[in-house]
Amino acid sequence: MSTTRHAPVEGFPLVDGELSVGGIPLRRLAARVGQTPFYAVDRSLLRSRVDALRKVLPREISLHYAMKANPMPALVGFMAGLVDGLDVASGGELGVALDAGMAPRNISFAGPGKQDRELEQAVAAGILVNVESERELPVLAAASQRLGQPARIALRVNPGFELKASGMKMGGGPKQFGIDAERVPQVLAEVGRLGLAFEGFHIFSGSQNLRQESICDAQSKALALAIELATHAPTPLRSLNLGGGFGIPYFPGEVRLDTAPIGAHLQSLSEAAKTSLPGAELVLELGRYLVGEAGVYVCRVVDRKVSRGEVFLVTDGGLHHHLSASGNFGQVIRKNYPVTIVNRAGSDRTETASVVGPLCTPLDLLADRMVLPAAEPGDLVVVFQSGAYGASASPARFLSHPAVAEVLV
Amino acid sequence: MSTTRHAPVEGFPLVDGELSVGGIPLRRLAARVGQTPFYAVDRSLLRSRVDALRKVLPREISLHYAMKANPMPALVGFMAGLVDGLDVASGGELGVALDAGMAPRNISFAGPGKQDRELEQAVAAGILVNVESERELPVLAAASQRLGQPARIALRVNPGFELKASGMKMGGGPKQFGIDAERVPQVLAEVGRLGLAFEGFHIFSGSQNLRQESICDAQSKALALAIELATHAPTPLRSLNLGGGFGIPYFPGEVRLDTAPIGAHLQSLSEAAKTSLPGAELVLELGRYLVGEAGVYVCRVVDRKVSRGEVFLVTDGGLHHHLSASGNFGQVIRKNYPVTIVNRAGSDRTETASVVGPLCTPLDLLADRMVLPAAEPGDLVVVFQSGAYGASASPARFLSHPAVAEVLV
Repeated sequence: MSTTRHAPVEGFPLVDGELSVGGIPLRRLAARVGQTPFYAVDRSLLRSRVDALRKVLPREISLHYAMKANPMPALVGFMAGLVDGLDVASGGELGVALDAGMAPRNISFAGPGKQDRELEQAVAAGILVNVESERELPVLAAASQRLGQPARIALRVNPGFELKASGMKMGGGPKQFGIDAERVPQVLAEVGRLGLAFEGFHIFSGSQNLRQESICDAQSKALALAIELATHAPTPLRSLNLGGGFGIPYFPGEVRLDTAPIGAHLQSLSEAAKTSLPGAELVLELGRYLVGEAGVYVCRVVDRKVSRGEVFLVTDGGLHHHLSASGNFGQVIRKNYPVTIVNRAGSDRTETASVVGPLCTPLDLLADRMVLPAAEPGDLVVVFQSGAYGASASPARFLSHPAVAEVLV
Repeated sequence: MSTTRHAPVEGFPLVDGELSVGGIPLRRLAARVGQTPFYAVDRSLLRSRVDALRKVLPREISLHYAMKANPMPALVGFMAGLVDGLDVASGGELGVALDAGMAPRNISFAGPGKQDRELEQAVAAGILVNVESERELPVLAAASQRLGQPARIALRVNPGFELKASGMKMGGGPKQFGIDAERVPQVLAEVGRLGLAFEGFHIFSGSQNLRQESICDAQSKALALAIELATHAPTPLRSLNLGGGFGIPYFPGEVRLDTAPIGAHLQSLSEAAKTSLPGAELVLELGRYLVGEAGVYVCRVVDRKVSRGEVFLVTDGGLHHHLSASGNFGQVIRKNYPVTIVNRAGSDRTETASVVGPLCTPLDLLADRMVLPAAEPGDLVVVFQSGAYGASASPARFLSHPAVAEVLV
């Protein structure tokens, strides 16, 4: 139970006392989908998030969508029309990115343990490979030879620093991600020897960060490191991927990121880059930040149980669809996502209740003793901040319940 | 990093220096499966586990398999020939249980939030419904009427006690599971009024317990509670499901459960039940304990990276197939499952290494700085204790990597 509040949720206004997505009241949307549970993402919110970000970013910064956050094909297709590029994390995601119509020159592929088959796919498609390991170089060179098409590569660098206050740290110290910064000069020499089409660096040190000053600090360090490493490059840098790391507020007490200072800071970095890395495109690669707040998860109350004085709303949804909201995906301490009752969101008749799913495990908990509008079977529960790491990050087959639906509204 | 040791793994002998499953060296099995990663479960180990348990249990105790632990159809089919009944947790699992050939009279269905549709399936199939909530009663009565077949029911009771030292607590205090013990007399009266075919109680208070004395204690309390509640029943008890809760050792320092004292204790409970609950069948319902130690997860080393002095074995498998081994399924503190290198298990050339997967997240960790045989790309990594809560409990679609294969050997 928490007394601190969630950051206010925006973009899902009440229509006749009922929450709506894209102007459609959620009970009507549920009927349109034909089932609960479902995920709904609002395309107008995707667009306004990108627009708002573009306003604070220097015009010359490229914005990429990291589709690992939500690989739903319709959503990737929509995002492809809004952003400058897509980042994929597997051969499977590459297929969706290409189907979405993104030009291969604006697709990049990062991830440790890429299979030979996946590297060959990347070369054949003509996309940029963010090389995570020296092992990938000869494989890419061989694929280039076979296909008669030079592999386009950037080196993912494991910097000596990490992104402070990140939800997840991916740089600094020994890591499976990227090539240790101190090894990069030797690896660049090898890149030259193998005749690979070198394009730049990918320096990314964490994710889900809500402190703008930490993000600015990491970006400054990344640029400085890139400038230093570029002196060893076989050809001038054409791109520098600064990663992302922009977080969204999930839990009580968390505050929305202020992007204005990040934009101002990137303006100064961009000026510096014009001198130090002339011709290099600066890329921001964002996943969760672009889509996370535009989506909701909706499930239906099947039962309202009172056990020894506590209220349990038992729903048809749960951790098999939304592992993150259940607190079972990397969280050390379980905390509540913002949750309410769709058709009673305006009601002041509230009670403390827990929202649980149909699985035979106490882990299946979507809200732990939250103050919610008093609900009845048939009511719809909504979990906000659910546009990223939802369906695709959840154990859909657990206990063989029906699959969740996904819609873009 | 832990200095305490894992409980010794049994049943996967070395053949020419290489681990085997069901007599087949794992590299040959990988070739037979046609891909890595895969899960392999050894049917002879399933059989010997059931046989060993039968030896210590009183003959009159019925043994059920809770298929939520591993719903692979071939495995459920094999188990159906070994045990006295199957427990299902959803309409989806019910279909697999019936396909497996288990007689409906020996199938039971537990789980909070059962859908009306699922309750109707259960009545139509003639299986036993473990009622978790008063809400289910009128739904079952209506289905009985429609189908002309009385619903067979047991009441799942939320006892006033909990299973001490359980991995997961599912009874005691306010819970979404079962009907609070103190409400049961009223609910039994309602069962009689509705003319449902009452058969007994299901009293289950936790899982993954490695202390035999806690399990015995919970079984004693369950029997005592059942005897007390039976005085309110419309008809004599025909069955009492004591649940399971038997754990297996996953982590360093954990010790295998000693079932002999549990068997002896059940002998005395069974004697007592003959007097107090004449005609009632006592049922043990086990999932993980029956299948968990019979299965392994196998993946291939794609890359061996050294980052700042630490060794990372990057594999084609990871948390998308085996969420539990990655420590992201309910564990508060991540610990290592027993892991080794298939084709070097006998080697004394060891090193400290971490085994990671191909996903772009530091959560994707199958072994954290373990002492392992020194491995190279192409080698196979095996994760033991993987027969339960593996493929079906993992986010298979995360980052759109290929699906894991499953074989019964």
